[in-house]
Amino acid sequence: MTTNDPAKIKDANTPDVAEAFEEIAETTQQVGLSDDTIREITDALRDEANDGHIALVNDLGIADTADLIQKIPQDDRNSLLEDGGTDIDPQVFSYLDENVQRSTLSAMEPAKVADILSALDSDDALDLIENLDEDFQQQIIKKLSAKIRIAIEEGLTFPEESAGRLMQREYVAVPQFWTVGKVIDYLRAAGDDLPSEFYDIIVIDPLYHVRGEIPLNRILRSKRSQKIEELTLDELHTIPADMDQEEAAYIFRREGLNSAPVVDSDNRLIGVITFDDIIDVIDEEAEEDIMKLAGVEGSDFYRAIFSTTSSRFRWLFVNLITAIAASIVISFFDATIEQIVALAVLMPIVASMGGNAGTQALTVAVRALATKELSDTNTLRVIGKETIVGTLNGIGFAVIMGVIAMLWFDSTMLGLVIGAAMIINLVFAGLCGAGIPIFLNKIGSDPALSSTVLLTTVTDVIGFLAFLGLASIFLI
Amino acid sequence: MTTNDPAKIKDANTPDVAEAFEEIAETTQQVGLSDDTIREITDALRDEANDGHIALVNDLGIADTADLIQKIPQDDRNSLLEDGGTDIDPQVFSYLDENVQRSTLSAMEPAKVADILSALDSDDALDLIENLDEDFQQQIIKKLSAKIRIAIEEGLTFPEESAGRLMQREYVAVPQFWTVGKVIDYLRAAGDDLPSEFYDIIVIDPLYHVRGEIPLNRILRSKRSQKIEELTLDELHTIPADMDQEEAAYIFRREGLNSAPVVDSDNRLIGVITFDDIIDVIDEEAEEDIMKLAGVEGSDFYRAIFSTTSSRFRWLFVNLITAIAASIVISFFDATIEQIVALAVLMPIVASMGGNAGTQALTVAVRALATKELSDTNTLRVIGKETIVGTLNGIGFAVIMGVIAMLWFDSTMLGLVIGAAMIINLVFAGLCGAGIPIFLNKIGSDPALSSTVLLTTVTDVIGFLAFLGLASIFLI
Repeated sequence: MTTNDPAKIKDANTPDVAEAFEEIAETTQQVGLSDDTIREITDALRDEANDGHIALVNDLGIADTADLIQKIPQDDRNSLLEDGGTDIDPQVFSYLDENVQRSTLSAMEPAKVADILSALDSDDALDLIENLDEDFQQQIIKKLSAKIRIAIEEGLTFPEESAGRLMQREYVAVPQFWTVGKVIDYLRAAGDDLPSEFYDIIVIDPLYHVRGEIPLNRILRSKRSQKIEELTLDELHTIPADMDQEEAAYIFRREGLNSAPVVDSDNRLIGVITFDDIIDVIDEEAEEDIMKLAGVEGSDFYRAIFSTTSSRFRWLFVNLITAIAASIVISFFDATIEQIVALAVLMPIVASMGGNAGTQALTVAVRALATKELSDTNTLRVIGKETIVGTLNGIGFAVIMGVIAMLWFDSTMLGLVIGAAMIINLVFAGLCGAGIPIFLNKIGSDPALSSTVLLTTVTDVIGFLAFLGLASIFLI
Repeated sequence: MTTNDPAKIKDANTPDVAEAFEEIAETTQQVGLSDDTIREITDALRDEANDGHIALVNDLGIADTADLIQKIPQDDRNSLLEDGGTDIDPQVFSYLDENVQRSTLSAMEPAKVADILSALDSDDALDLIENLDEDFQQQIIKKLSAKIRIAIEEGLTFPEESAGRLMQREYVAVPQFWTVGKVIDYLRAAGDDLPSEFYDIIVIDPLYHVRGEIPLNRILRSKRSQKIEELTLDELHTIPADMDQEEAAYIFRREGLNSAPVVDSDNRLIGVITFDDIIDVIDEEAEEDIMKLAGVEGSDFYRAIFSTTSSRFRWLFVNLITAIAASIVISFFDATIEQIVALAVLMPIVASMGGNAGTQALTVAVRALATKELSDTNTLRVIGKETIVGTLNGIGFAVIMGVIAMLWFDSTMLGLVIGAAMIINLVFAGLCGAGIPIFLNKIGSDPALSSTVLLTTVTDVIGFLAFLGLASIFLI
């Protein structure tokens, strides 16, 4: 049954229910922007005679407008931003993908970008400006009011992907000797000085050291006379401004935090990170892992063709060297292949099965490292398990592929050779699939980035070496 | 500078600051559970003479205890749960990985599991019981109090991975004609009847239809006389109980929600989903995508060896069929390979480059589909872009590999043949890398699951066919 099923409204015999349904039908948003709406707006955009698209765009929510900008072709995007640019809610730009952000903002006047930044919370403003060219950044910063300029210049001093870049400078902090009643009176009087949204009250001492954190629901359910310091959570999770964002996300996730205070190197409160920033980080990091495993530098979905091509070229080039290494192994056995051409037919199977079995183990290990489930205490158990899994599957596929090769080429020995090679390669696949990322992590390399290439080298080289080597011994 | 730098404490000349630092040092938790602590506890566990481990485990937070249970070997886990099981906070079990949850709970008495479930919020209780065997579920349900039993039995009627399974039944809802003062008085009086945490107040009419939602900070900053209905958010995001959890996560992310009301098919309020449930979903879904792309059924990090082996076997078996298909293509050209053994040496390079270039395009497309950035309106542009990227990289590697082959085997024609095959295979890699997941998505299949196998088949078959086919025409 859908939300606005007319049958249901007819059934309803009190006006209250009918009214409720109408209201729900009005306010419940459809999930996402439909392709029909996009088509309607691009048609209106291309009709230069009138400005029909402006009304259509104004009807969209913030997230939908961002979606629209991302999904329409470059020409339509330009004409949308040219005539409608000033009417677009500044929040929309925060929702855009990094590549689209850079290209749309770079096409604007610095003063216009400064206006957009001034309308945002400090964390969102920083997020927008940090992706732009340094020259352009400076031009924009000159146009900003002193207050925002200082916030942004300070923000840019924190390392990229650190908590300092994520935090907003707007927060609610109260002294520990206050009561609930005093906090409520303060919030009612503060009005526009408060952040647009907040989820916890931070308790500080006169030197701005954080003494505790109180979720808003604890304030609301307590009597006015209740002392603030008695309401603080048992555990305090302050985040140093230079902490890596991935680490901060790990703390939020483990502790189920809604927001957390950020402190400087003197432990003084300087900002707040909220759960929505953290959801972005989680998305970003998961995306990065997926992309790196496939040899892509972050998502290049919105990246221009030439920059996409060249970034992918680099990884494919590394892969070419790997592939040539495997070819050199094959070339050692060219005399053997010349005599038994069946070897050339079957050899890719051994390499491919090793590569795939290894990738399975590797992916599980890379994720377990990223989520900190894999650490020193269980390293050996994990490598051991993966090696056993590889061995068991190796035996299974040795039997299957051995029988197939025997029947196909009418040679028992060929079947035995491919079976033995399959077991050897799948044992190494399990061992190295788990071992390579663990080793890379231990020496401080990013396991998601280079594991796949190293693993493929191992499974190709060992696959060809075992199969062709055994063949040259037992079949010639 | 670290949190508990003693130099800093000495510098501090007011007792207040020193005290603050001590407090911070005490309450700020180290991120994650250290390997040293794990070792200390397992040593204590193995020392059967005394119960030293109990005090150590009691010192850990909930997330750390869960971490400990997951990271120690099976034997230690059993002895920890045997003697200390009753002392472990029921919340800990919610933090465990699904596989560990199942194995630890299945080893307990149904009455003990029922005690654990009774101590949890309804969503966490449901999350624990839904993974157990149906027989065991029934035994546990019999031991529950009527109130919890009904909540769990109802919860189990919702489809797996639906919003109904995620939601908690504990929420705060008030009628729209109340004032802020009345809401605050109600919350102060309600005491233990309130959920343990809540982030928004839901506004309902007498028939439990949702009329609006109010973040707690809006209540706190408003005067007592303010009418509740004037504070509700402009947009209402109710979630139908049968909505897929991935869809619900998409809404939370787009709109930056902290919590959202869940409604039944009559649009009546039945529960609430909070951001922490959604973070779990986002993690789960990203993990699923990564794993599926590698041919693993969800993370099997904590899964037993035999069940891991058999689940991976299935995917490797599909891969074996693919590899055999490629071998059949090679076998068509066995006479050609017999004459020019260099072809056997070089052919894996063409196939491997195609496979890798295709995987790059495929991964970007699969993620863009998962995040709904890829839809009907930009399908053709995306496939077009990937085909151009493939073509450009194909030309680049055709030149590089052509020259290498020419020099290695001293044959200009061999260089031209491998160059041409490289271009052909990388064009198809780009086209199919983007096209296959889009096609699978359109026909309602899961693009993450089968794209990789289909793509490898294409790039292997086309790679071998183009290279060996051209060679048999131009080199013989």
